[in-house]
Amino acid sequence: MDDRWTRLAELAVHGANIQPGQIVMVTGEIGQEEMARAVAAAAYDRGAKFVDVDYFDPWIKRARIEHADPDTLDYVPEWYGGRMVAHAEEHGGRVTLAGVVAPNALDGLDMRLVGKDMLPRVKELGKIVGDRSTNWCIAPCPHPEWAKLVYPELPEDEAYEKLWHELEHVLRLDEPDPGKAWEERMDALNESAKRLAGHRFDAIELRGPGTELTVGMLPTHTWWAADFSTADGLRHFPNLPTEEVFTTPDPLRTEGHVASTKPLVLRDGTIIRGLRVRFEGGTAVQIDADENVEALRSQLAIDEAALRLGELALVDRHGRIGPLGTVFFNTLLDENAASHIAFGSGFPFLVEAEDVGRVNSAPTHVDFMIGSPELEVDGVTAGGERFPVLRGGDWQI
Amino acid sequence: MDDRWTRLAELAVHGANIQPGQIVMVTGEIGQEEMARAVAAAAYDRGAKFVDVDYFDPWIKRARIEHADPDTLDYVPEWYGGRMVAHAEEHGGRVTLAGVVAPNALDGLDMRLVGKDMLPRVKELGKIVGDRSTNWCIAPCPHPEWAKLVYPELPEDEAYEKLWHELEHVLRLDEPDPGKAWEERMDALNESAKRLAGHRFDAIELRGPGTELTVGMLPTHTWWAADFSTADGLRHFPNLPTEEVFTTPDPLRTEGHVASTKPLVLRDGTIIRGLRVRFEGGTAVQIDADENVEALRSQLAIDEAALRLGELALVDRHGRIGPLGTVFFNTLLDENAASHIAFGSGFPFLVEAEDVGRVNSAPTHVDFMIGSPELEVDGVTAGGERFPVLRGGDWQI
Repeated sequence: MDDRWTRLAELAVHGANIQPGQIVMVTGEIGQEEMARAVAAAAYDRGAKFVDVDYFDPWIKRARIEHADPDTLDYVPEWYGGRMVAHAEEHGGRVTLAGVVAPNALDGLDMRLVGKDMLPRVKELGKIVGDRSTNWCIAPCPHPEWAKLVYPELPEDEAYEKLWHELEHVLRLDEPDPGKAWEERMDALNESAKRLAGHRFDAIELRGPGTELTVGMLPTHTWWAADFSTADGLRHFPNLPTEEVFTTPDPLRTEGHVASTKPLVLRDGTIIRGLRVRFEGGTAVQIDADENVEALRSQLAIDEAALRLGELALVDRHGRIGPLGTVFFNTLLDENAASHIAFGSGFPFLVEAEDVGRVNSAPTHVDFMIGSPELEVDGVTAGGERFPVLRGGDWQI
Repeated sequence: MDDRWTRLAELAVHGANIQPGQIVMVTGEIGQEEMARAVAAAAYDRGAKFVDVDYFDPWIKRARIEHADPDTLDYVPEWYGGRMVAHAEEHGGRVTLAGVVAPNALDGLDMRLVGKDMLPRVKELGKIVGDRSTNWCIAPCPHPEWAKLVYPELPEDEAYEKLWHELEHVLRLDEPDPGKAWEERMDALNESAKRLAGHRFDAIELRGPGTELTVGMLPTHTWWAADFSTADGLRHFPNLPTEEVFTTPDPLRTEGHVASTKPLVLRDGTIIRGLRVRFEGGTAVQIDADENVEALRSQLAIDEAALRLGELALVDRHGRIGPLGTVFFNTLLDENAASHIAFGSGFPFLVEAEDVGRVNSAPTHVDFMIGSPELEVDGVTAGGERFPVLRGGDWQI
C-alpha cells in the first residue's frame, strides 16, 4: 500500500481516537477506496473490533432522481438511520472521508428534486453528534477529479500531486510528528475559544463586502475549537484539518444580510456560487445565488429550523489553509480558511442546560463561508459595550 | 449509458420481477458499479420506491484479516443482518450481481482466518430465502478481471468482449424477446422437475469419475426449477441464467464419495480446485482438494450442519452453458453447466410440512459441481426399484 495513504489514514484514526474493541464506521464515496482500505487497516491496527465501510455512489442517486417517482424522493428505509443509531448506542467510532470525487454526477438534474433526496445524510446524525455518543473525525481524501476542479490550469498528474502536497501541508503531515503538531495548534485554538467565551457576548456583528450581519448569542453560550470529548470523556478531533473556533447562536436573533466568500459545495456535489442570504428574526427570508440556488433552497425547505443558524465560526489568519489561497470546493477545507456560519442543527453541548432547548434543531447542517481579510468582527455585550474581535484576520481580544 | 448494461439490467429486474412500490436491494462488489447503476435505473423504471445499493469491498475484508485480532473475525454488527430482515419484512425485492471482480484480493492469507469472516454473506439470509418473503434474482456482471480469468489466452479487450458475448448468449439476451425465451426454457425445466417429483424416489445414486454417491431423499420431497413464487404468490426467477432442476435431500443419508468436476469459487473469491469429499451418515467426514482446501474447511467448520447437504441439482445437456465448454469460475454459471450438490442450508419449501424439520438448516450454502457427460444418475424407490435418470446428459425418465 502507498505509504502516503497509510500516513493519511493513521492521522484520521488518530483524530477519531479509535479505541480497542470499537466498531468503526468509515463513510466514503465510490472512488475513495484506497483511503477507506487504509483507514480500515489503521483502525484494526488500533484494535478495532469491526470496521463497517459504506461507499456512497452519487450515480445511484442520479439514477434515482432521473427514474424514480418524484413523490418518493424523500423516502429513506428505516435501516439507514437505524444503523447509525445502533452504532452510536455501541459507542462506536467514525471516520468520514471528505473531498470531491464525482463533481458532475448530478449535472443537469432538476435541483428541486436533488434537494428532496438528502442522502448520504441521514436525519439521525444531528442527534448523534449532539449527544456526543461517538468519537469521530472527518478527513480529506485526495482524488484526481478533485484535483482537476481545484487546479484546472495544471495537467492532471501535476494537479493530483499538488492536491496531495497541499493537503499534507494543511494536515501537518509534513511535520516530523503530525500528532504533536496538532496538539500545539489545538492548544492555541482552545486558548482563543476560551478568551471569546470569557466575554459572554450578547451578539456578534460581522461587516464586510456584501455582509452586514448581527448574530445573537444565547446567554450561556461558550466557544470551542474542534477538540471534542464524547459524553464518556473520550477526546477526539472531529475535523482534520481544523482552524476554527465556533459557537452555537440564538436561532431567533440573526438579522441582516450576508454574502458567501467561497463556493459552497453541498454533500451531493452541487456547487453553489455567489450565495447571498437575508435574515429576519433569525430566519433566512431570501436566498439567492449565481448558480444552483434551487438545490440549497429545497434542501433548506425540508424544515423551518433549517432556515435558521446552528453555528457561527471564526477563523484567524494563522491557520495553514487560508494562506494557500486555494479554493478546495469542499467545506472541510474551505470552512477552515475563513469564518463561516451554518444553517440547521446547532450544538447543544455549547450551552448550559437552561439554554439547550433554545439551540437550533434541524435535520441538516450546511456551512457556508463568509470570512475574508476584509471581514470585521465585533462582539457586543448585553450592556451594549462593543469589542473588536477580528481585524484583518488577527484576534483583537 | 451503454445499451448492453441497460439490457442486462432490465433482464435482472425482470427476473426478480420487481414491483411498483418495492424497496429493492442491489448487492454487488466494488467494480460492478456500471451494472448496479443500470439495475437501479431499471428498478426505478418499474416503479421501485427505493433502491438500496450495497457495494462489498473484498480489499476491506483483506485489511481485516491482515490487521484485526483473529478472535474477532466472526463478529458482524447486528445491523448487517437486521437490514436484511427489515427489508424482508417489507416484502422487498433483491438483485444480486454475480461474477468475479477481484480474484486475487485474498491471495496469500491464512485460509482458516478467511473462512471465519463469512461476509458478505449474513446468517439471516438462509431463513429469508426459506421463508420466501422476497422476490429476487442473481445475475452475472461482466468485468475485465473476470474475463482474464476465464479466457487467459486472449488479449484483455477480446476476453472482455467474449465474456459479454457468452453471457448474453447464456442469458438469452441474443434472442429477440429474452423474457419469452426464458418462459419457454422454464416450461421445459418445470416439466423435468415434475416428472422427477412424480417418482418420489427414496434415493438418488450418482456414478462417474471419482464419484460414487448415494443421496437419500425425504419422503415428501419435490423437485423444482428456479422458477419461484414468494409466500405472497409473486413469481420470480432467482437465478439467471438457470438450467437446473433441484431438490433438498435428507441431510442424514448421504453416503459415498464425490469429486468436483469444475472449480469451486467461494463468495470471497477463493478458488478451490480438485475437491474430493467423503460422506458418512450424511456428514462430510473427509474434505480434500488440490488447492485452498483450508478455506472451505473453515467455512464449513462453523456449524455441524454445514457439513451436510442442503441441495441436489441435476442439469441436462440441453442448456446453453454446458455446450460452451467454458469454465466461468463462478457458481451461478458453472452450477448450471453441470449437476451439483450443496453443503449447508436446504430448501424447506421443497418438502411438505411433516418433513420441514428434517431439512438441513445451516448458516451457509456452498454449491459444488459434480456433473459431467460421464455422470450416470439413477433413482431408487423405497421398494428398491431402480430407474435410470440421466445418461450422457439426457433425461431417461
